[in-house]
Amino acid sequence: MARQTIVVLGGNGSGVSAATAARELDDEARIVLVDPGGEATSTVAAVPYAISGETASDSTLSRGRPVALSASHGIEMRAAQGPIRIDVAARRLHLADGALEYTALVHALGAETTPDPRVPAAANVHRLRTPEDLAAVRAAIGPRARVCVIGGSPTAVEAADAFRRGGHIVTIVHSGGRLLDDFSEMGSARATDALRAAGVDVVLGEGPAGADVEEGRVVRLTLTGGARAPVDLVLITGPLRPHSGLLRAAGAELNEDGSVVVDELCATSLPHVFACGASVAVPHAVTGWPVWLPQAGLADRTAMVAGAVAAGGQARLEPVLNTSIVRAGELTLARTGLAWDEAVEYATAEEIGQVSVHGSSCERTLKASQPLAIDLIYHRGDGRILGAEVAGKAGADKRVDVLSAAIVGGMTVERISALDLAYAPPFSTARDVVNVAGWVAGAARAGLARVWTVYELAAHLGSVAIVDVEPERGRAGEITDSLVIPLADLRSHIAALPRDRPLVFVSETGRLGYVAARIARLRGFKDAGFLTGGLLSWQAAGLPVKQGSKHR
Amino acid sequence: MARQTIVVLGGNGSGVSAATAARELDDEARIVLVDPGGEATSTVAAVPYAISGETASDSTLSRGRPVALSASHGIEMRAAQGPIRIDVAARRLHLADGALEYTALVHALGAETTPDPRVPAAANVHRLRTPEDLAAVRAAIGPRARVCVIGGSPTAVEAADAFRRGGHIVTIVHSGGRLLDDFSEMGSARATDALRAAGVDVVLGEGPAGADVEEGRVVRLTLTGGARAPVDLVLITGPLRPHSGLLRAAGAELNEDGSVVVDELCATSLPHVFACGASVAVPHAVTGWPVWLPQAGLADRTAMVAGAVAAGGQARLEPVLNTSIVRAGELTLARTGLAWDEAVEYATAEEIGQVSVHGSSCERTLKASQPLAIDLIYHRGDGRILGAEVAGKAGADKRVDVLSAAIVGGMTVERISALDLAYAPPFSTARDVVNVAGWVAGAARAGLARVWTVYELAAHLGSVAIVDVEPERGRAGEITDSLVIPLADLRSHIAALPRDRPLVFVSETGRLGYVAARIARLRGFKDAGFLTGGLLSWQAAGLPVKQGSKHR
Repeated sequence: MARQTIVVLGGNGSGVSAATAARELDDEARIVLVDPGGEATSTVAAVPYAISGETASDSTLSRGRPVALSASHGIEMRAAQGPIRIDVAARRLHLADGALEYTALVHALGAETTPDPRVPAAANVHRLRTPEDLAAVRAAIGPRARVCVIGGSPTAVEAADAFRRGGHIVTIVHSGGRLLDDFSEMGSARATDALRAAGVDVVLGEGPAGADVEEGRVVRLTLTGGARAPVDLVLITGPLRPHSGLLRAAGAELNEDGSVVVDELCATSLPHVFACGASVAVPHAVTGWPVWLPQAGLADRTAMVAGAVAAGGQARLEPVLNTSIVRAGELTLARTGLAWDEAVEYATAEEIGQVSVHGSSCERTLKASQPLAIDLIYHRGDGRILGAEVAGKAGADKRVDVLSAAIVGGMTVERISALDLAYAPPFSTARDVVNVAGWVAGAARAGLARVWTVYELAAHLGSVAIVDVEPERGRAGEITDSLVIPLADLRSHIAALPRDRPLVFVSETGRLGYVAARIARLRGFKDAGFLTGGLLSWQAAGLPVKQGSKHR
Repeated sequence: MARQTIVVLGGNGSGVSAATAARELDDEARIVLVDPGGEATSTVAAVPYAISGETASDSTLSRGRPVALSASHGIEMRAAQGPIRIDVAARRLHLADGALEYTALVHALGAETTPDPRVPAAANVHRLRTPEDLAAVRAAIGPRARVCVIGGSPTAVEAADAFRRGGHIVTIVHSGGRLLDDFSEMGSARATDALRAAGVDVVLGEGPAGADVEEGRVVRLTLTGGARAPVDLVLITGPLRPHSGLLRAAGAELNEDGSVVVDELCATSLPHVFACGASVAVPHAVTGWPVWLPQAGLADRTAMVAGAVAAGGQARLEPVLNTSIVRAGELTLARTGLAWDEAVEYATAEEIGQVSVHGSSCERTLKASQPLAIDLIYHRGDGRILGAEVAGKAGADKRVDVLSAAIVGGMTVERISALDLAYAPPFSTARDVVNVAGWVAGAARAGLARVWTVYELAAHLGSVAIVDVEPERGRAGEITDSLVIPLADLRSHIAALPRDRPLVFVSETGRLGYVAARIARLRGFKDAGFLTGGLLSWQAAGLPVKQGSKHR
């Protein structure tokens, strides 16, 4: 076999992964890693954690790997400045200083940023993606700087939280109505509350409208609402877009959002040209729809496929779930699969169920235990889990990964209700919150009680009878116009409950609300239901409660 | 429908779960929870964590739940002293103070301890399962007590570790050759090393041979090896057995180990008699074989099924994986599915593959990151994951739960290599160690390199050529008689390598050993392989390395 030349375009993590994967299948090939440099190809995910003080040292953030690679893996490293062009017919990559003929080309240029026209370029306006950005940010600010983060994506929230942990005074300004719009509305509310509780000023529905620049620095930002805020640093976080211009110019098929269309071998529509990393769209595990998700983990997995296939090996893309996780103050928020809004596009609203449960990161008797909430989206017809969101101070990462595996494994809610998870008091509860979520959804599917989500109930307040059955008095208040009947008294008071409206039983977590709904159902109240997630979810969504208690 | 009477026998967690599950399906039934009391029915998993100082307060360990239950769930609580007998034909439970007629009986008596004949009863000889045990232990010892834990099960290791964390001086004495024999040999070695590193004296292959008793207390233990050790407390941890005598007397079918045979509805062989909790055997998810596992999580899941079915509802046992987790010093050790020894009973040794990988709990640049190792057992034929063991200071619980879900979901190693897990630097690495384990196993299945486990290599040291290719000099030494050729020099030295023996490439983690094996394979060394898990696994297994280095 003639010696192959595999050219990988992109010096970031995906490029390195692709080149490595290729080398391990073909030790004779010439493999060239072409690095055009610049921010698009040097994102290092851990950079914000140097600001928060969580990294061991800055030197660990440097990209030393390519150098080691060139020795151990025999990969030629080639810097490329200036224009680049792909000649598909001739299988040639044109660089400013010459051309490279390739047997296979792997495009791994990642995602690129777009300028934010609302903020002028200045010595204290930066992003935070690369070690170079980190150095520039550090040069621009001292301790307890006033930092304004522009944007509402996970990147923006992660950055805001990193500056907060680093002792800075942080404002996050987002022109959208809520942060983290890949998450549920409740998740957004939770993140906003947690950031505010941690001292971050969260400004929604506004953007930068103007800036006062002095001596090359932005000293004051004016927001669209009219407020003017002095700043020491403006951090730009979005938007990203697929860095796919070269492929577009070469005639490759792109999606509307500019992401690269690839098949399950990471092949583009151009012969002998593969693509991977944060520029490609990948099929969603539930819907099959191509989705563009500029995430480091996914970028790496696509790179391993593209590199292997380019070298003649066998590999295949696995679908993705848009699994992601972000810290906001003391909260960790994680998601996988479909959110409600996506699920009702995939199926009909009638086919989609949601339950919300509250549990504990570990045995409640331990000091280390932290509350943990799961919102589970499932298909009411076949019981398949479609998506989940997990929120808590500890243990959210574990539950979301288990649920991600459950979705890929095609599991039903009934199956996860009995999933054999590792139990010892420091790690979980004997009935883990994942099991509970599955169990509640299974009860709903079996028709044991009608489930009301907080948003459904909020939309029907006038036409239902709400009965608060919580015996514990730890909480802030009740939903307005609740009847208050502690569960232990429910059986003796049940005859007096209205029969002309749906009954919705409410408790702190939803657990006792479910029990109450069962009692009512078994006594002839056919439309008895409960508020899933209870008052805890109601309050997490920012819905109002009445202070004080009519309770005995 | 006539009013049912459901009698639940056992006041522990399973009994309560079963009674609750029954009530939520039948609000009219009379439900009686019969509690014979005693240690068998009052185990509280968190008790050892009061010794370690990790519980919030002792009051949280009390079993207040049954009292609340009787109000909210309308469950009659009945204490039962003295003999109990089941009259199956008459559907009647005979208690010392009268008989209870039942529509359905749910047996939930759990597991019981057996006396340890090697240790006399004394005021400072105890178990640590119940709040009463906790009070007795506290009364028996002061600070920095000399505690001798007898046994080698997870319960023994958990207790030893709890006393250590509580500031006591701990010896663990186990008559078997290794601790934790449900785990792999390497897992046992890891736990022993970690306990010793934390200051626990671990004595294996010996048991108590005699005791000096003064004023009703054991003051000195003599071990079978002849050593005599002064003690302030002797903690008995085993063995447990199913508390199934009542069912045996009533004629129920039991397994050889005394565990109760139940079907997937938790029905025993006796009509109208169900069983759940830590006395029943449940089918293993991989083998289908009934297994008796006295674990709190599993006990709870069986209870929910038994309670629901007894009340006329629908529920079904899901198979189990013997998922478990234990802390030993700074180490957390977790397992799920089949261990190697079990896998080669289930299939042939040729069909079973194992790979070992080393990764990090979170992004390596973060101070919080901790090393994490996975040993993955899979079926070489169809690629199914059969079992896994995870070891590390942080994050082992997450990975084992993901792998448990993957086994239940019938996933292959290839599929988990691309599992979409949540990535952000504080939680994982972009290529999580679970992904890596799947990827390496996939490479092995594809025939890309021969995998040697540490035990296979140890058994063939004389007949293979070992080549150490690790370029980094951080480690302790090499396997005796290794050739040392750093990976970057391998290509230029490869012609000199022996062709008459299998080549085994060794590196720190196994990663570069794999790369070296690929290079050799692609250059005609057909039997080139690598040591999976590398020197880290070799040393974790307690296998010898030569100190010092021949390295350039």
